[in-house]
Amino acid sequence: MDVNAERFLKDLHDLRSFGASGVVKGVVRPAYSDADIAARQWLAGRMEEAGLTVRIDPVGSVWGLAEGPSILLGSHSDSQPEGGWLDGALGVIAALEIARAAQEAGGPAVSVVSFQDEEGRFGVTTGSAVWGGNLELAKADGLMDRDGITFGAARAKMADLAGEFVDPTRFTGFIEMHIEQGPWLDQAGQAVGVVTDIVGIRDMKITFRGEQNHAGTTPMHLRRDAFQGLNAFATRINEDFRNVVTPQTVWTIGHVSLHPNASSIVPGRVTFSMQWRDGDADRLARMEAIIRTAAQEIADSRGLEVEFGPMLGLEPVAMDNVLRAALAKSAATVAPGKWREMPSGALHDATNVARHLPVAMLFVPSINGISHDFAEDTDEADLVTGLKVLAGAVASLRP
Amino acid sequence: MDVNAERFLKDLHDLRSFGASGVVKGVVRPAYSDADIAARQWLAGRMEEAGLTVRIDPVGSVWGLAEGPSILLGSHSDSQPEGGWLDGALGVIAALEIARAAQEAGGPAVSVVSFQDEEGRFGVTTGSAVWGGNLELAKADGLMDRDGITFGAARAKMADLAGEFVDPTRFTGFIEMHIEQGPWLDQAGQAVGVVTDIVGIRDMKITFRGEQNHAGTTPMHLRRDAFQGLNAFATRINEDFRNVVTPQTVWTIGHVSLHPNASSIVPGRVTFSMQWRDGDADRLARMEAIIRTAAQEIADSRGLEVEFGPMLGLEPVAMDNVLRAALAKSAATVAPGKWREMPSGALHDATNVARHLPVAMLFVPSINGISHDFAEDTDEADLVTGLKVLAGAVASLRP
Repeated sequence: MDVNAERFLKDLHDLRSFGASGVVKGVVRPAYSDADIAARQWLAGRMEEAGLTVRIDPVGSVWGLAEGPSILLGSHSDSQPEGGWLDGALGVIAALEIARAAQEAGGPAVSVVSFQDEEGRFGVTTGSAVWGGNLELAKADGLMDRDGITFGAARAKMADLAGEFVDPTRFTGFIEMHIEQGPWLDQAGQAVGVVTDIVGIRDMKITFRGEQNHAGTTPMHLRRDAFQGLNAFATRINEDFRNVVTPQTVWTIGHVSLHPNASSIVPGRVTFSMQWRDGDADRLARMEAIIRTAAQEIADSRGLEVEFGPMLGLEPVAMDNVLRAALAKSAATVAPGKWREMPSGALHDATNVARHLPVAMLFVPSINGISHDFAEDTDEADLVTGLKVLAGAVASLRP
Repeated sequence: MDVNAERFLKDLHDLRSFGASGVVKGVVRPAYSDADIAARQWLAGRMEEAGLTVRIDPVGSVWGLAEGPSILLGSHSDSQPEGGWLDGALGVIAALEIARAAQEAGGPAVSVVSFQDEEGRFGVTTGSAVWGGNLELAKADGLMDRDGITFGAARAKMADLAGEFVDPTRFTGFIEMHIEQGPWLDQAGQAVGVVTDIVGIRDMKITFRGEQNHAGTTPMHLRRDAFQGLNAFATRINEDFRNVVTPQTVWTIGHVSLHPNASSIVPGRVTFSMQWRDGDADRLARMEAIIRTAAQEIADSRGLEVEFGPMLGLEPVAMDNVLRAALAKSAATVAPGKWREMPSGALHDATNVARHLPVAMLFVPSINGISHDFAEDTDEADLVTGLKVLAGAVASLRP
């Protein structure tokens, strides 16, 4: 099978034009935005031209289906609120190019998918979580973005395009190509990473409620200040995690919503995101216990009420040995001495797909490790090397 | 002079209808909102009916001017984003009623003012700060609200109504009636507070810039997390202030804006408000030094950049002895045993007016000390007692 690097790169740049931020190669294409829906329709057209049967499922994931049993390749085409041009898009367009090249070569059968809302406007990898059975559709429909819009209302925007969910038994496995989103390949000057496993993730919203009051007339000792509750919590968990975490464990407070958020008012309420990731499910659970205890004790000691939102998340997932070996063998052929095996610190759709299918992943470098930012980029030579490694692995899997 | 309690309370409830929140007696009437401008036009009509000459100045403060030299009474009619019905409105309507009663009684000459943007959508008591000469108009015009709208653009909405600034030399003094906004009168079961002095205030925005990155693939030791910078800063100043503050000193982080504010992204930037208040100008300066040092050291040690916004604020102000004595004498007559002398922990327009005129203030209780909240309220009997104390003081000042 011969992939066409030029055609692949042109499609990748064309996809970037949907929601291009105008800042370097940045993209603003969150799930169900006008740009996202237009990109998915364009993608459906390219799949059709490639001889695939298009299906858009009830949550807006776009599928290009080969006939008979096939290997599934893909990723997602929605972006972060301020995202890069490769996160997700790379895996989808690489899949499209390999499906085309495979059709031209007379096989193997390759299907393509772009999952919806991988970037978590509503939940965590929402589209593949629903398809994979990690999240019930009815429960997903109740999830809200930070403007109070529900997943159910958002996916209704694509209802006129939607058919049934795709039956997973038609696929023999799933491989997702993605940018690393971390610094390791770039720092080592390597072109390809073959993923060994994907770390697990936990994500929940926590709310402290205190008493909104005047910032001049309320003495410090009478305040029930929600922001000071958050401050005490964030300090406390940084301490309490010390004896539990490894250097690979991460935790993030990335979203904070203060109410009423005015400089002259003691904040009466704060809602914030608490997210943590690790390769060990037991450690994730120990961290959860620390979080819940710390938030409760801080609330109790400061006259606040604490409320824990639903906990979203996914278990750590090991890659399939056969698929992973095919990728490693192809990498050794295409990029000798320039590849490594490595874990994925980021979550991916492959995590959910693993409920149905054997899965594997490969990475290409992120320049300076930057992603989820307009500045995200990868050398085009590395993109093509990744494409060739994936194509080689897929070709080797032909029965 | 006989004030009309019924007419006073009716006007107060009528003013509440502009921007009524529908939640208890709450009001949403921030400066230059449609509700605020409509309320100011209604107020101008009531002033005219009371025989006053109406002037709306270039920043939208509304004046009802008596002929010849007069005492000035008033406050402000804009509200917090989620405010109560009495904060500011009480002082304006009490002034209107006393001006009316004084006209009916043949004197003394009483003028009325409702200053614009006391609640600080743009700065701190912006309207009276400009009139009082504490803030240049050109500088005020550059101030931005949290949606990025400038004061200059906002006041242009009232340009068709605006005349010249009012000459302060026509007034002999200024008295502002206001709710206490703190717990002390209510807890003591008292009806009136005669203010001794107004604490000073400092308010500035601080920004930490770090590096926005992926919350799964960026190891903790490589992060430059803007939120963690804020957390360290808030913890540090709580410590460092200990040896400097008194039980009356207050400080507040009431506004936090995180960027890009998504749970899966290490925050690259945070802008937050830092406000502190005290009766002693030296202490305010010592606190400023602690704040700047802490923010700079935290930025340096965490690979962040720190940026300090312009510092807004007002010096502590002592009330005029003559006006204050008149209020105390009237309180002793109208509410014997039910009044006290007390400082104002809140900032008021009187602070700015003090640049031009002798000023004084009186307080009525805030039920449970609540203000800057829909639940703000005062017993109507206490409102009328306050009105009578102010009327008595004004009558006694007649030359």
